[in-house]
Amino acid sequence: MNTSAPARETPVLKVGLLGAGTVGSQVARVLLTQSDELAQRTGVRLALTGIAVRDVTARRDVELPPELLTTDADAVIDRADVVVELTGGIEPTRTRVLRALKAGKSVITGNKALLAESGRELQDAAAGSGAQLSYEAAVAGAIPIVRPMRDSLAGDSVNRFLGIMNGTTNFILDQMDSTGAAFDDALAEAQELGYAEADPTADVEGHDAAAKTAVLASLAFHSSYTIADVHCEGITGVTADDVAAAREAGYVIKLLSVGERCGDGVNLRVNPVMIPRDHVLGGVRGAYNAVFVEAENAGSLMFYGQGAGGDPTASAVLGDLVSAARAIALGATGIPLEPYAALPAVSMDDVTTRLAVTLAANDRLGVLARLAKVFADNGVSISTMQQSEDPRESDTSLLRLVTHSGRHESLMATVEALRELPVVQDVVSVTPVEAGE
Amino acid sequence: MNTSAPARETPVLKVGLLGAGTVGSQVARVLLTQSDELAQRTGVRLALTGIAVRDVTARRDVELPPELLTTDADAVIDRADVVVELTGGIEPTRTRVLRALKAGKSVITGNKALLAESGRELQDAAAGSGAQLSYEAAVAGAIPIVRPMRDSLAGDSVNRFLGIMNGTTNFILDQMDSTGAAFDDALAEAQELGYAEADPTADVEGHDAAAKTAVLASLAFHSSYTIADVHCEGITGVTADDVAAAREAGYVIKLLSVGERCGDGVNLRVNPVMIPRDHVLGGVRGAYNAVFVEAENAGSLMFYGQGAGGDPTASAVLGDLVSAARAIALGATGIPLEPYAALPAVSMDDVTTRLAVTLAANDRLGVLARLAKVFADNGVSISTMQQSEDPRESDTSLLRLVTHSGRHESLMATVEALRELPVVQDVVSVTPVEAGE
Repeated sequence: MNTSAPARETPVLKVGLLGAGTVGSQVARVLLTQSDELAQRTGVRLALTGIAVRDVTARRDVELPPELLTTDADAVIDRADVVVELTGGIEPTRTRVLRALKAGKSVITGNKALLAESGRELQDAAAGSGAQLSYEAAVAGAIPIVRPMRDSLAGDSVNRFLGIMNGTTNFILDQMDSTGAAFDDALAEAQELGYAEADPTADVEGHDAAAKTAVLASLAFHSSYTIADVHCEGITGVTADDVAAAREAGYVIKLLSVGERCGDGVNLRVNPVMIPRDHVLGGVRGAYNAVFVEAENAGSLMFYGQGAGGDPTASAVLGDLVSAARAIALGATGIPLEPYAALPAVSMDDVTTRLAVTLAANDRLGVLARLAKVFADNGVSISTMQQSEDPRESDTSLLRLVTHSGRHESLMATVEALRELPVVQDVVSVTPVEAGE
Repeated sequence: MNTSAPARETPVLKVGLLGAGTVGSQVARVLLTQSDELAQRTGVRLALTGIAVRDVTARRDVELPPELLTTDADAVIDRADVVVELTGGIEPTRTRVLRALKAGKSVITGNKALLAESGRELQDAAAGSGAQLSYEAAVAGAIPIVRPMRDSLAGDSVNRFLGIMNGTTNFILDQMDSTGAAFDDALAEAQELGYAEADPTADVEGHDAAAKTAVLASLAFHSSYTIADVHCEGITGVTADDVAAAREAGYVIKLLSVGERCGDGVNLRVNPVMIPRDHVLGGVRGAYNAVFVEAENAGSLMFYGQGAGGDPTASAVLGDLVSAARAIALGATGIPLEPYAALPAVSMDDVTTRLAVTLAANDRLGVLARLAKVFADNGVSISTMQQSEDPRESDTSLLRLVTHSGRHESLMATVEALRELPVVQDVVSVTPVEAGE
């Protein structure tokens, strides 16, 4: 098998843009103002041939040539060689993206919700026509994680990833950690600074992170997952007390996206967990994102950067666009990603994890012995224990226990059995511990 | 421009391996034992058709089929579609790699010394025939940094990178930081644990990091640099006192590889510097590597992982191999990387940096005023100053100063002027401060 000499003429590729919001208008700006430099850098000239918007007269951050603006998305697609989709939402976006892919037009998208719901269908459409589907911007914003996962680790095997993939919640938890603020106050500050939306549900309930988890896990494990496969808990229940207790014990609470091999399948989860402060993920502050990957041969890797924002996300979109353009210009078709492994998503029950449990218990002799018996009966062993007075009740102590590793089901059964004990007044909090031991 | 449907039959690609050391034998093992899984995963069957070694009877970590072993490297190249070069050294490797590339055979190499000396020549040979030259393993071992730099940031512009790209020196400095050990003791421990070679010169003098810096900078700045363009200082002069003083001030000493835009050019340097402990690079412990990148749109990114070792490096080689194989199977030729920007390498003089300076000075009134005048005369301002008794001399104080940012030339001129002051007994240490302010 041999290769032929590359073409010497600069090929021109027509780019159709769907959406001109924060990211879309940045992408348009770069394509319009840096065309020569991009051509020089990439060997392909990218010509923006149309921008589909909902309202051509709307005010935008970047002034766009009126002759490119249209409300007719289909016309933009028809005219283009490559389609950049930055409208978001499921429909009519899904139909449009499918139409483009089936026509052999490569698509770059940052739409994690669409990918987490219909990723397989889109991949199949791309494979059928030889088009490429690229979505670096959909997972962890500007951080190059999709391409390394797909290409750099193509000869390796991923055992687990741990990701901080939502900047809003990381900002809130970091504020709580560094200032002692309550969740509501930290959220209000995030909203004031533009890190959180007026309706923060998708972020604080973990839905955004869960969509990204499904997309990344599909790549990492050569399988096909949707958001429904991801166990998802948000951070609204995390209290200032939880954060302070974690800090005291050398941990920090993060909303973690986990995808890990578990028996013959894969468990996918998003939930607030404690991680050691000195773990590299513990140093991911503010609205930054990071993905920690454990691979069979490569060992531990981490990818860190800005998870959101117009410019960073535009950078990821442009990287995809240039790669797609070069591949097309050089005659390559898309790499069909077969979910050949088809590892099933398994429930939380079988996951091996550790739990940090805070109990309010009667402050009298013999309590510890009773608690210890419950742990022993459930086959769960205690790693550390700390006892202090409950500031709220004089005859009560607060017990903070961290277990050794165990099956999640056994750990949760232990917590339920503890709750039933007459000496236990309240199970104040239950937080998994990750990235340690 | 349109694309055609991908081929459905699994293409076979003949792989010739040069070298069967720690990394080479791991690569061979994976190719021989995981052929089916790799074919399924990548859509290409990789057939190992020959392994060139110096001595076919030598003992190896991995048992290799004798019929594949030969001392005739040229025969291995002739028989192959893709060549994996893991022999190291400049000649005869350079001649062999050039011959393969000119014959249109893609080459995967982990040879940073060769790339740092003859990278441009190899790139030109590849561009001429349409072959691909891949070298993820040559920079920061298993960390995917070459591909993100080349592809993911293709639509962005890199302003600066700061890398910890030599595991041996990071291990030594980390030991000195965490245990207070002297350089010699930390080196001895690194040697005992297999992190440092019997002759540690290439690592501790910064030559290995400088080669990687030249390779990464060529990619990052679309230019062509050799190791001669890199200002290089090793860590043999770093003392336990330096490390302890840095620690006390909230810094950690790292051997940093820096590539940054500077005026109309780029400055490339490798030297021991102080970085803030709470910077993400400050948390890179042991033999780990990391590269921190500042890009125009993407903002700050960091890539972290194992910089050396057989399995991690083999992972990077296999990633390159699979990518090259897929591209060839899909009909793509290599992407010619033109060093179109051709940013000149500029000297240290013009670099903007900060310095931490430790002086031994007479312990009497008026000394500070004289020092301050020297700084003012050179247009350099002082950021922090700490005075303590010199444990070695009763009538001497140790002054630790950190400057604000200034031109390196002015900062060094200031240090020389300080050295000339009669009240200054000794300039104990001079360490640049990076990644702060």
